[in-house]
Amino acid sequence: MKAGIISIGDELLIGQTVNTNAAWLGQELGKFGISVYKATTIRDIKEDILQTVDEYINEADFIIVTGGLGPTNDDITKETLTEYFGTTLELNKQVLERVRFFFEQRGKEMLDSNIQQAMLPKDALILDNLHGTASGMWFEKSGKILVSLPGVPYEMEALIKEEVIPRIKSSFGIKGNYHQTLMLQGIGESFLAEIIENWEERIYKEGLHLAYLPSSGLIKLRLTSVKGNEEAGKINDYFDELRKELPQYVYGMNEETIFESVGELLKSKNATLGTIESCTGGGIASSFISKSGSSAFFQGGLITYSNALKHKLANVSLKSLEEFGAVSEEVAKEMALGGQKVLNVDYTIAVTGIAGPDGGTDEKPVGTVWIAIATPDGVFTEHYLFGEHRGRNIEKTGLYAANFLRKLILGINN
Amino acid sequence: MKAGIISIGDELLIGQTVNTNAAWLGQELGKFGISVYKATTIRDIKEDILQTVDEYINEADFIIVTGGLGPTNDDITKETLTEYFGTTLELNKQVLERVRFFFEQRGKEMLDSNIQQAMLPKDALILDNLHGTASGMWFEKSGKILVSLPGVPYEMEALIKEEVIPRIKSSFGIKGNYHQTLMLQGIGESFLAEIIENWEERIYKEGLHLAYLPSSGLIKLRLTSVKGNEEAGKINDYFDELRKELPQYVYGMNEETIFESVGELLKSKNATLGTIESCTGGGIASSFISKSGSSAFFQGGLITYSNALKHKLANVSLKSLEEFGAVSEEVAKEMALGGQKVLNVDYTIAVTGIAGPDGGTDEKPVGTVWIAIATPDGVFTEHYLFGEHRGRNIEKTGLYAANFLRKLILGINN
Repeated sequence: MKAGIISIGDELLIGQTVNTNAAWLGQELGKFGISVYKATTIRDIKEDILQTVDEYINEADFIIVTGGLGPTNDDITKETLTEYFGTTLELNKQVLERVRFFFEQRGKEMLDSNIQQAMLPKDALILDNLHGTASGMWFEKSGKILVSLPGVPYEMEALIKEEVIPRIKSSFGIKGNYHQTLMLQGIGESFLAEIIENWEERIYKEGLHLAYLPSSGLIKLRLTSVKGNEEAGKINDYFDELRKELPQYVYGMNEETIFESVGELLKSKNATLGTIESCTGGGIASSFISKSGSSAFFQGGLITYSNALKHKLANVSLKSLEEFGAVSEEVAKEMALGGQKVLNVDYTIAVTGIAGPDGGTDEKPVGTVWIAIATPDGVFTEHYLFGEHRGRNIEKTGLYAANFLRKLILGINN
Repeated sequence: MKAGIISIGDELLIGQTVNTNAAWLGQELGKFGISVYKATTIRDIKEDILQTVDEYINEADFIIVTGGLGPTNDDITKETLTEYFGTTLELNKQVLERVRFFFEQRGKEMLDSNIQQAMLPKDALILDNLHGTASGMWFEKSGKILVSLPGVPYEMEALIKEEVIPRIKSSFGIKGNYHQTLMLQGIGESFLAEIIENWEERIYKEGLHLAYLPSSGLIKLRLTSVKGNEEAGKINDYFDELRKELPQYVYGMNEETIFESVGELLKSKNATLGTIESCTGGGIASSFISKSGSSAFFQGGLITYSNALKHKLANVSLKSLEEFGAVSEEVAKEMALGGQKVLNVDYTIAVTGIAGPDGGTDEKPVGTVWIAIATPDGVFTEHYLFGEHRGRNIEKTGLYAANFLRKLILGINN
């Protein structure tokens, strides 16, 4: 079954609003094995709507149209679709009552433009919108289904879950796709592709679908079965192979962040964590606390941006700062160990580096980073040379530091 | 001039990644008076790419294609476009050198798949990607221009700004709209619209174009003149009116962040800053250091996530923690003042709050935040009740805290 999405609204094309509806619909429909083959965003212009709808009706089995159902003049989706499907508008008393009630509840007066919203296409199935004044509309034409929904995310989402999905499942007798995503950190897409070449071939022979989804500093490997849950075990087995073969990179599943993964690991060991950050300036700590419940393991941190504070807060010796410089293995170690005492925690992550774009030297170019981790068993370090991009360097430092801690806790060697 | 956007990638259609590139492109092109008439997202499938590209070549003057340029097997954009434009791939030695250097710098070995990335279409203009291994490609066909760019946002954005926009302006003789953007923090869109209603009417009478561009916690007001620079003075005068009328909200211009604005202010006064963060867990400090040169004013900070560390690091009295609770005006004040001493800085920002989704009470619901700022003249506080969403609460806390410091430094009353 081919499903398409048409998003209508100038605000999406000028970039005033990011089109999150399309992504949400892709995920939601995917759960039921409905795959979106194409998504198009167009302006509130009659010709554009007619042309695009016709294109999708010819190509797809099921089309979701969002937006352009508001009460203002620039919203022309309803009139245009009514014309396209060769029907006419009529007053829907039931909807009129609901809209009237909607305004009463909120102690607002109903405007003529809202009464107009109760004028709906005769030959469409009307989908009741409990969260707003614009109704959903279900059109059918030569076996194709087109559903028009409001663009307001929570109104659209409720209509999809409560009205559209149940009908679609029965209309098309759907059996769901099944997919799982393996999360990896610390390896490049092309390098990974070479390592798992044979594994990948076997995947394809099995008729499973593999997708590489690189996202800044991480790689997501998605395995999909069109046969639904029955191949869940098989997919898990294939992922287990990679877990065993690449434990230094594989840290989790399905959108879990490396910080969430490490946080769960620390909680499971009743261990506490603190951070001592220079070049990341608090970014690593903020990544750990972005998930609620982090207070169970994260105690706090020191942001030792200046050398004076490296010495004062983390007790880094002035001699080391002088002799080795702030960006050095020795200073990173002292930050980690000093912080472990001051913060009174089991583990610390300490980072010092040259984020750039300025401050690089031949000996220590921009992107040079030292990571030190203090554990109950001692202090360990890693050295990296990232790129020129400041933001990217800061982000990567955090990701690599978190994975380094994960490897140390689990006793994984590179 | 008609511009269209084609985004290629299964991950966008299954909703694993939200298509922020399309929105960014819509905004960026809009600055130069180039309006996007349509944006389509398609799968990494040859037929789909060929069909969609052909559709756009027929409809549009200028097409931007993003994604599908990675080194792995599922990336087929380059090969498919090469076929569509009737050319062939050849080894581009210059790009090969750049890619080799790219890996050398990072001390990594280059793989065959990366060498493949230096195989580029003969009849296309190659756009050098300084941030990655996938080059941009500029194709022309019967007066139409199609540009293919990597899907990684910062790689795509750099290529657009440095390579594409300048060429497009000359190719289409775009006189260039002139536009400036005013940045505001701390006011809602509809409330702002009410306050500046008359100002807005005069704008339209002048023939200037106004766009509200709300982005989490901020509002950008963009004024555009189709006459180019000649109306620069006029636009500046209109913005000056708002600066004078709304100094508590207007903090800067043209994509400047509130943290950059406050940083410049501190530098101009040779003043130093430190942070003492609880609910934001280092996020405020990391926002200040995300711009290079921040070491000129930012010294460091304390992340006092646990109560124990509020006491130990920032010298918050156990009595206050006991009597008023961690999320209280008194504790925020003591954090700010204690941190000012420990960090030995002129100004501190201290925040303590309930980010949620758990931990709220009737008395202190989720979203409750206390901000205290210590200055050379004393300590000042603000209290907020944000929403339910943890991420947004953390983000808003930082934005409001930075603007609070800005107002204190400039002596602006709310």
